[in-house]
Amino acid sequence: MITEFATRRQNLFVQFIVLVLAVLSAGYAHAADPLPSWNDGAAKSAIIDFVTKVTTPGAPDFVPESERIAVFDNDGVLWPENPIPFQMAFAVDEAKRHAAEDPKIAADPMVKALLAGDYDKLMAGPHHEGLLQIINITHSGMTTDEFAKAVEAWIATAKHPRFDVLYDQLTYQPMQEVLAFMRANGFTTYIVSGGGADFMRVWSDRVYGIPPGQVVGSTARVKYELRDSGPVLVKTMDNLFVDDKAGKPAGIYQFIGKRPIAVFGNSDGDKEMLEYGTIANPRPSLGVIIRHTDGEREYQYDVNPKSSGTLVEALKDAPKRGWTVVSMKDDWKTVFAPK
Amino acid sequence: MITEFATRRQNLFVQFIVLVLAVLSAGYAHAADPLPSWNDGAAKSAIIDFVTKVTTPGAPDFVPESERIAVFDNDGVLWPENPIPFQMAFAVDEAKRHAAEDPKIAADPMVKALLAGDYDKLMAGPHHEGLLQIINITHSGMTTDEFAKAVEAWIATAKHPRFDVLYDQLTYQPMQEVLAFMRANGFTTYIVSGGGADFMRVWSDRVYGIPPGQVVGSTARVKYELRDSGPVLVKTMDNLFVDDKAGKPAGIYQFIGKRPIAVFGNSDGDKEMLEYGTIANPRPSLGVIIRHTDGEREYQYDVNPKSSGTLVEALKDAPKRGWTVVSMKDDWKTVFAPK
Repeated sequence: MITEFATRRQNLFVQFIVLVLAVLSAGYAHAADPLPSWNDGAAKSAIIDFVTKVTTPGAPDFVPESERIAVFDNDGVLWPENPIPFQMAFAVDEAKRHAAEDPKIAADPMVKALLAGDYDKLMAGPHHEGLLQIINITHSGMTTDEFAKAVEAWIATAKHPRFDVLYDQLTYQPMQEVLAFMRANGFTTYIVSGGGADFMRVWSDRVYGIPPGQVVGSTARVKYELRDSGPVLVKTMDNLFVDDKAGKPAGIYQFIGKRPIAVFGNSDGDKEMLEYGTIANPRPSLGVIIRHTDGEREYQYDVNPKSSGTLVEALKDAPKRGWTVVSMKDDWKTVFAPK
Repeated sequence: MITEFATRRQNLFVQFIVLVLAVLSAGYAHAADPLPSWNDGAAKSAIIDFVTKVTTPGAPDFVPESERIAVFDNDGVLWPENPIPFQMAFAVDEAKRHAAEDPKIAADPMVKALLAGDYDKLMAGPHHEGLLQIINITHSGMTTDEFAKAVEAWIATAKHPRFDVLYDQLTYQPMQEVLAFMRANGFTTYIVSGGGADFMRVWSDRVYGIPPGQVVGSTARVKYELRDSGPVLVKTMDNLFVDDKAGKPAGIYQFIGKRPIAVFGNSDGDKEMLEYGTIANPRPSLGVIIRHTDGEREYQYDVNPKSSGTLVEALKDAPKRGWTVVSMKDDWKTVFAPK
């Protein structure tokens, strides 16, 4: 009896040790470096400190999981946007493919300009009518399934002109780590991009672990038809919603329905979304701007405000808003995720 | 030593029994009646059988959790839509409140008609211009926060004219059970309603356990402004998207980004959504129509195709589409969820 009692005490002791270890290892989930591709510095600390404080139970800045909404621009934040945004490269390749298959499309003056490399003609006019026509041809008229198949085929084969790898092999490793770190800490991660939602949703889950329903992007109406083969949705360009600038907080409100507490952007197109997340938010919040300062490993366009990803106003506002500015050159140990 | 060994064996035995019980109880999660407010019959069986077959690992009809998308119309499926849709009751009450506070609104001819009970005037014209004006006054011009506060205040106080309880106390208990049953089995449940998304999102989580991001409804543009008090979104009536009829599959595609495998509707407004979920869907699917057959406990409008919730075409299609038709009178033991 006494032996049994002693053994039970021993068992209890072992159980206690296991419990202590479990608690310790849970408490130390943050201890292993969650952002190994980031150099130590203010930017890395700002992200880790923010996640730590909103996830520490009982702390004054604690935020319940359901409200841990993090939004990320895509082009220039999760992957590059040079030499042209990747969706534009898709549109160019698709226009050529359509032209080869359909003489009527080949005869379109704007497609002709594209094939002749006359980009000035495409960009002429206040609304870049030529460019819009290329987008129209490549992004409407087909069913959503046909469009998804075209995107899948393109992203499985097309290569980036400078890095000579598939486009989806050019995601930023430091940002993949931020996505994983935030999700491991109960955040829901959303893409909020000026890019087309239908374009991104095809590969967002595979490439970023972000399912279609968490991708907010530019959209246009789709038209329902019941065909002999079954129901389809046909893409149109009607009621275009451009998820950029003031459209971003609007898109967040309508698609997510909650105010974000963490916002990652890289250009003036993200300024309103950064404001929406961080100004007069009753919860603690984090605003981060990824600045493209690394011409050697990626592209340096912080100095050229006319390039894609113009960053002038948001950068000016950063100090007064308390936004963290990340220098890709200085803050990132690695740029691209390993293949 | 031997005693210790025996005790360890004993401990292992206890652990084994606990494990067996855990496995058994997991396997028997379906054994307790998940839909106690449903009378036994074809409708109840159809729902339970469907959930069982898509969640049985290794079975030919197994569907992974990420694809278990269930969509529910709201008015007439999760709560009543009589004598008028509840959001319309909100609009009427709000128009009166605005009129009492603002002489300019009180002077509006359509508000005057409303206050005088002249509903014919409101409903006149091909687009019911009077009604639209009432919706305009009560659903636009304010910030999204102001609108949410107005909805909260209304739903906390306004009472249903017949049942004399708060509107959110009139949800259907059998459907609350379906929502809970499907979620317990790895489904994500969405509202897909012709009602305003902004109206429903205020209370959908509390009332149905459906968070704002899983509510698809009619929407119009919101306009971002950075005011001295902080960022706001102002409601407009621009680019109105009506999430009804062919709009429902379009809304599902744009907001959820996945095809549903379970669709619950009650009217012809749900026909296209039922088609989208169940015709030529590569996955197994379930279509359910809730038929309002119970004038005593709720409203009987299956016989009056001109009332709210017209159900003619979808009902005609039900047999050939394999949709399950639920008779509220015969299939539901209880109608309303307990207060």
